Formats: sequence, structure tokens, C-alpha cells
Amino acid sequence: MLQRKACFFLYAEKKLYLCNMKEYIHKVKYYECDRMGITHHSNYIRFMEEARVDLLDQLGYGFEKMEADGVVSPVMAVNCTYRKSTTFQDQISIEVKLVKVSTLKFSFAYVGKVGDEVVFTGESTHCLMEKGKPVVLRKRYPGLFDTEETKEPTH
Amino acid sequence: MLQRKACFFLYAEKKLYLCNMKEYIHKVKYYECDRMGITHHSNYIRFMEEARVDLLDQLGYGFEKMEADGVVSPVMAVNCTYRKSTTFQDQISIEVKLVKVSTLKFSFAYVGKVGDEVVFTGESTHCLMEKGKPVVLRKRYPGLFDTEETKEPTH
Amino acid sequence: MLQRKACFFLYAEKKLYLCNMKEYIHKVKYYECDRMGITHHSNYIRFMEEARVDLLDQLGYGFEKMEADGVVSPVMAVNCTYRKSTTFQDQISIEVKLVKVSTLKFSFAYVGKVGDEVVFTGESTHCLMEKGKPVVLRKRYPGLFDTEETKEPTH
Amino acid sequence: MLQRKACFFLYAEKKLYLCNMKEYIHKVKYYECDRMGITHHSNYIRFMEEARVDLLDQLGYGFEKMEADGVVSPVMAVNCTYRKSTTFQDQISIEVKLVKVSTLKFSFAYVGKVGDEVVFTGESTHCLMEKGKPVVLRKRYPGLFDTEETKEPTH
Repeated sequence: MLQRKACFFLYAEKKLYLCNMKEYIHKVKYYECDRMGITHHSNYIRFMEEARVDLLDQLGYGFEKMEADGVVSPVMAVNCTYRKSTTFQDQISIEVKLVKVSTLKFSFAYVGKVGDEVVFTGESTHCLMEKGKPVVLRKRYPGLFDTEETKEPTH
Repeated sequence: MLQRKACFFLYAEKKLYLCNMKEYIHKVKYYECDRMGITHHSNYIRFMEEARVDLLDQLGYGFEKMEADGVVSPVMAVNCTYRKSTTFQDQISIEVKLVKVSTLKFSFAYVGKVGDEVVFTGESTHCLMEKGKPVVLRKRYPGLFDTEETKEPTH
Repeated sequence: MLQRKACFFLYAEKKLYLCNMKEYIHKVKYYECDRMGITHHSNYIRFMEEARVDLLDQLGYGFEKMEADGVVSPVMAVNCTYRKSTTFQDQISIEVKLVKVSTLKFSFAYVGKVGDEVVFTGESTHCLMEKGKPVVLRKRYPGLFDTEETKEPTH
Repeated sequence: MLQRKACFFLYAEKKLYLCNMKEYIHKVKYYECDRMGITHHSNYIRFMEEARVDLLDQLGYGFEKMEADGVVSPVMAVNCTYRKSTTFQDQISIEVKLVKVSTLKFSFAYVGKVGDEVVFTGESTHCLMEKGKPVVLRKRYPGLFDTEETKEPTH
């Protein structure tokens, strides 16, 4: 289970993308549940953010460091599919992967589970803004765009 | 501008679907804004729910009536595309349309504007549950499935 | 009902303090209700903020203007007594009064009603900060500290 | 540091009251911070609930068990004093104590710290309701009302 223990890269579409080292756990709070007794669907968007923040922290480039650099990362789009309801005290473990990188945008994919059961899947798309202008990712992070065809995936 | 004044139906894919009579207005609250000074992206999912609730109220079949009938309407999927950031005190006007109905699921589409500018678009998919079982929409609401080819759109 | 129609001042402790011109209405949202089916208690603190923001807007000195002036107004303390539960779709009308002003702090009192019934009462205490330092209210807003003994209350 | 390791009782006013075995940690989320860049004040009321839930879990009588018993525990009053602002990623450790028990009501006191610094203090008052009626605590939990004068505090 290397995926759980060390930061690794996902080999996909001839590129290597990062996944989270260890999954993020969100324990559902009382105030996150609604009149139906289940976790309100809007909160999953927040759990996805928590997991994303945790991934960046694990990589050593957290939101705080980013903000200190004058870079903000607005969310451009988000989607979530609810597969099974969760409720108060459920421990949702969330895996995050960077799944797409283009010139100006990048996307994370999320899978949330309670035990072995998938409870939600989602995706979020972001850009980076610096002084009000979008950061050209290919220039700033050329490593993400290296031709990776010849590299072996690390898992 | 009949669309703003009366409940009407959208003629699409040979079916008539309902739209909201008047758009729903959400005025952004201080506590809905984040460290970037903009409305936190998760809140738009809540605004969509508010607009949906308002549409159902306008139609005279609100959440409360539904719950009193023993019917709940879980969200199955949601997506949102953020086109322009909004902030504290912005008045977002949201239009909702029922855009898809299948045997077990239905979807609403949302367009949110500040003034004339589109700030977000979104979609949510739902089912109806009664005593733990999904409601077969074709049986319960046959009107939604009538062959509408011969009807004239109402606008 | 001057109180409902025009900004007025409350004559108390030999000082005149302002009240809101018209009460603020918060309609309880679905996502604000919890597993007990009632408005989650934490949300009332947000409703109090909404009502306070509305009061300042009515007075023409809103949060935005304050922030543009480089002034922020942190909350120093808050309390709320829940007298009757509220739920989804309830319309809570909230009256706000400035009830105390001292050298560095000021307090608002809130009464929230559904119909004629009081559902909560609360109080919040604030200071003003400018460039990291507390604003001395007596210097900045001497009008609030004028000897008011001889003035007639306006209602 | 027995207080950190085992459930213990606070000897006060000739009664023994329980405190949490180990403090509860809340790590501040991005979406919990506001335009001032600090944790929005309303969220502390939620952190207090989280800590209270955690205490009851540690005691083996959690919300879920309570709800399964048909007992709900509405909040009757809450207050919070903000001593120092906190922000994104701060780890707030919260100690909870049961500080008052009367015939129908009981109160918890909270102290939240970041490192050694107190960032907030608060209190919440509750009752228990069963089938719409308040539970008489002295009858249901006589142990809490035992004369404790002769007992030695356990720490």
C-alpha cells in the first residue's frame, strides 16, 4: 500500500500526476447534518477543499505558503456525485488526485469512502492568480509538463 | 417578459418543462465570504438549493408539503461553474429550470447573475424517496411525461 | 409606529442610542436546520450579524464603507438565549439596538420574533480596529458621547 | 497530567463534575475564515458543539445513543468571549467541563487555546427533552446530585 504511505505519482495520459500520500479523514459533525438526518450535500464541497488543502500541506506547498507568495487559487468549477448518504460521526476518508493540467487550469479528482463503500466522487478545477492575472502553469511549473513517456510510474 | 411574471414552461426536446416565475435573489452575507474576500465556492451550492426551494414554493409544492407527504428529495449530483467571483452584499439573481426528467431522476439548471453578468451556472440532479424507496416519476407525475409534441409552448 | 419607519434613538441611561429603522427579516433556509429538524443554534449568531449589517446599511455606514476606510470591527463577545425553536421557512424578524458604548467597546442587543413570539434574544460586543490598533470611540465618534440629558427622546 | 489521560471529576461547589479526558482539537478550515482573514466568530459556537460531542463520546454516552434513546438535547443559551483571533490551520485545543447542573438544566464551560494562549472562553446551557417534555435530571441521573462533600476529588 505505497499509496497510503508515500507521495506518489499517477501515470495517466502519458503524464505523471500526484495523489495524496495518505487519505484525508473528515468526521461528520452534528451541524453538518440536515433535516433528513444526513450530511447536507453542500458540505461535501467543503470536505473536498479540506482534502485538497491536506494534499498541498503534505506536499509542502500549502495555501498559507501560496498566499504568502501572493498567489491565490480560485475554484473555477466543481462537481460532486452522491453515491450513498452519510451522517453524523461517519468517518469519510477522501483520496485526492491531480488529474488534469493544462496551460491555465488544473483539476483534482476525489473519491470519498466510509469503510470500503464509495459515498461520493467529485472533481474540482482551479487556476492560479497572481496580482489579478492568471499564472501560466507551463512556465511556472514546467516539471508538470515534462514529457513523461519514458519514465516509469513509481508504483 | 412573461418569464418573469408567470410560471411558464420551457419547450425543449419535445417536452415542456417548468421555469421559475420570478428569479430568486440571494444577497451575499459577510460570513459567506472567505479569506480571498469573495463568496466561498461551496455557498453557491446552497444558493442553488434556496432557488430550488423558492421555485417549488412558487409552484405550491414546497419542501414542507413534500416532507409532510413523507417524500424526501435527496440530491444525487451537483455541479457548478464559477464564471465571475461575487462578494459581500452582491445581489445574485438566480433562474432555475427543470431541464431533464427520467423515470427516477430529474435535473434543474441554474443561471446566477449580478446585474447583467452571469456569475455562475450549475445543475443539480434529484430523485424522490418515499419510505426508503425511489418514487417512479412516470407513475406519480404522468403529466411531466405527456407527449407534448402537439402543444404550443406557452411563451 | 415611528420605530418601524424611521431611524430613531433609544433614550436609555441618559444617552440616546440607535435602533434599526425597520426590523431585519431572516427566512430560515433548509441547510440551516439540523437533525432535530430545527434551526441549528450556531446560525442565530449569523442572523445577528445579518441584522447588524442591515442596521449599519440603513444608517449609511455599512461594513463595506468601514472596510474601505481601513476599519474592521471584530466581535469581542456574543451571547444568545434560545427561547423557542424555529425551523425551515420561518421568518424571523430581528430588532437591533446599540445598547452600550464605552471608550473602546460597543454592544448591540437583539430580539428575534416569529410573529409575536420571541424566539431568541442576544447581545454582541465589538471594538473597531484601524491599522491593528483599537479606535478610541470617544475621539472618533464624539457625538455618541455627547451629554444627552437635555435632549428629548425622539419617540 | 491525569486530566489529559482519564475522565476525571471537578470538585466544585461541593459537587463533582466531569471534565473531558483529553482536550478536543479543532484545526481551522479555509472556509471557516472570513474577509478579515480570521475565523468567523459564529464558528466557535460550532467548535464548542464538537468538543461537547467529543466529551460525551469519551464518556460513552454520545449524541447517537441519546437520539436512539429518544432523547434530544436542545441548546438553551450560549455565550462566547473572543480573546484572540485565530485563523486558517490554527489548532485550537478545547477543554470542556460540566459546570452546573440544576433540576432541568446543565451547563458546560469551554476554554480554547492555541498553544498556551487562551483564544476563547464560552459556556452553553442545555436541557434534555424526551417525547416533547423536559427530562427531570435529578430523577434520571441521581448520581449527578449525590452529596459529594465527603468524597475526595480524584485529581
